[in-house]
Amino acid sequence: MNFGTVAILGPGLIGGSLALALADRGLAKRLTIYARSPRALDEIRIAGIDAELSTNPSEAVREADVVVLCVPIEAMGALVQEFRDALKPGALVTDVGSVKGSVDAALAPLLAGRAWWVGSHPMAGSEQSGFIAARPDLFENAAVIVTPTPATAPGAAAKATEFWRALGARVFTLAPEEHDQAVADISHVPHLMAALLVASANPASLPLAGGGFRDTTRVASGSPELWIEILWANREALGRQCSAWAAQLEKIERLFRQDTPAAKSELFKLLEQAQSTRSQLIDKKPPVSRS
Amino acid sequence: MNFGTVAILGPGLIGGSLALALADRGLAKRLTIYARSPRALDEIRIAGIDAELSTNPSEAVREADVVVLCVPIEAMGALVQEFRDALKPGALVTDVGSVKGSVDAALAPLLAGRAWWVGSHPMAGSEQSGFIAARPDLFENAAVIVTPTPATAPGAAAKATEFWRALGARVFTLAPEEHDQAVADISHVPHLMAALLVASANPASLPLAGGGFRDTTRVASGSPELWIEILWANREALGRQCSAWAAQLEKIERLFRQDTPAAKSELFKLLEQAQSTRSQLIDKKPPVSRS
Repeated sequence: MNFGTVAILGPGLIGGSLALALADRGLAKRLTIYARSPRALDEIRIAGIDAELSTNPSEAVREADVVVLCVPIEAMGALVQEFRDALKPGALVTDVGSVKGSVDAALAPLLAGRAWWVGSHPMAGSEQSGFIAARPDLFENAAVIVTPTPATAPGAAAKATEFWRALGARVFTLAPEEHDQAVADISHVPHLMAALLVASANPASLPLAGGGFRDTTRVASGSPELWIEILWANREALGRQCSAWAAQLEKIERLFRQDTPAAKSELFKLLEQAQSTRSQLIDKKPPVSRS
Repeated sequence: MNFGTVAILGPGLIGGSLALALADRGLAKRLTIYARSPRALDEIRIAGIDAELSTNPSEAVREADVVVLCVPIEAMGALVQEFRDALKPGALVTDVGSVKGSVDAALAPLLAGRAWWVGSHPMAGSEQSGFIAARPDLFENAAVIVTPTPATAPGAAAKATEFWRALGARVFTLAPEEHDQAVADISHVPHLMAALLVASANPASLPLAGGGFRDTTRVASGSPELWIEILWANREALGRQCSAWAAQLEKIERLFRQDTPAAKSELFKLLEQAQSTRSQLIDKKPPVSRS
């Protein structure tokens, strides 16, 4: 399988891993990489990836059959406006942003009639960032969500699915809004909770922390600059979750205060359900360890 | 260094690791192990640990210089009543329970005038349980909190400190109530949050979970039978934390709803503070990886 010329815009952790993975698997006839700064391109040059490098996005996409936007979500609209006139007719444009409703709303009108557009979100990454953290196996066994809408050309979703599958990912298809709700559950709310666990702990308690605390809060080491944009872009779904959590925690506080066998048994049921669900998660898919 | 005869009551993950560590480091002249069920003792026998095994706690403690209670916290009071008449005068009795205020309140009166009593809490373990998960290096570089009170014989705290240090642990001294507040921060609240993250996620979202969700929720795989007792025993400190978290989450919901630069900047500051604190945690102590 070969996807022709692939343009990667933004060679950070995800874009850099994409370049490494495409090269490793021989999936692109030609690779072009755009970065805003020449310094970022120097890193790629030093790594010895066989790609054409440019700080001009129009140059990077001109011959591309597949264009993958790997820049921060808040930078995508302006970038697309900059390069869209240079796109080859019939090119597939997709992205790797962590939020899909607002990205689709911003990009679909800009690309309508000019290219096949469909959003993607690889659920891969780590608390690290930048090309320095890129790995050719980042997408292997990772979940990637492709988010077509009624306005999406059917061929676009099929081609994006084929692209991520070729990189070793398990591809799911959800509407952008379904995606945003799901990632609130499994990524954005966990990130917020991890940050709150660290920020609200008494600093004097931290030297006592064991492996459990380190694991539970690992994601809080992620870039605040990156995460504020992700959380903010998904603020509607997240706001609803915050209210639901506040109500849930007040209920648990009442159970503790009641201190009856029935109250204890209710909290026990929550722990039991969580354990059972969490264990199924392990059983279904061996965890892909990420440093 | 040698602690004479050491009695381990309850050879689960912690008690079993203690037996392996004492044997490995040659810290006990003689090791006795009590378990309620003969089946549990068979496991020890098969593992080939050089110890005297008994289902009679009085027999296990009779000659002991150090007695370590490694049974669930709710079972400790009855067990101590069963064996206390058999204790050798001057023996040190300590425990490994995750909550210290209620344990000290229950055990100190039972042991007053009969033995040196002081509580201990090794911050080591994993989501696994039972002797099968025991490891001789479990206490290496782990934090152990020793919790004397004004009623504690000064020699008791010093001897317990020496004991855990000999096993490779970093020992901290806190009053039982300070301990309970600290472990609420770094262990009990994180456990509750991990359980809520799993239990409140839409089951349809779970197949999409990546490494971040797995890490953040790993502790939710812990035994619900064990954790309900830990959380319930520390319900006063935890109830206060639940109220504080509910207020915090309602505040974040308001920030999302306001959707102003000032609101966004406030959430950014929280993420930034969390990242900075979490990174210091890594820098100060290399994480001890526990599967």
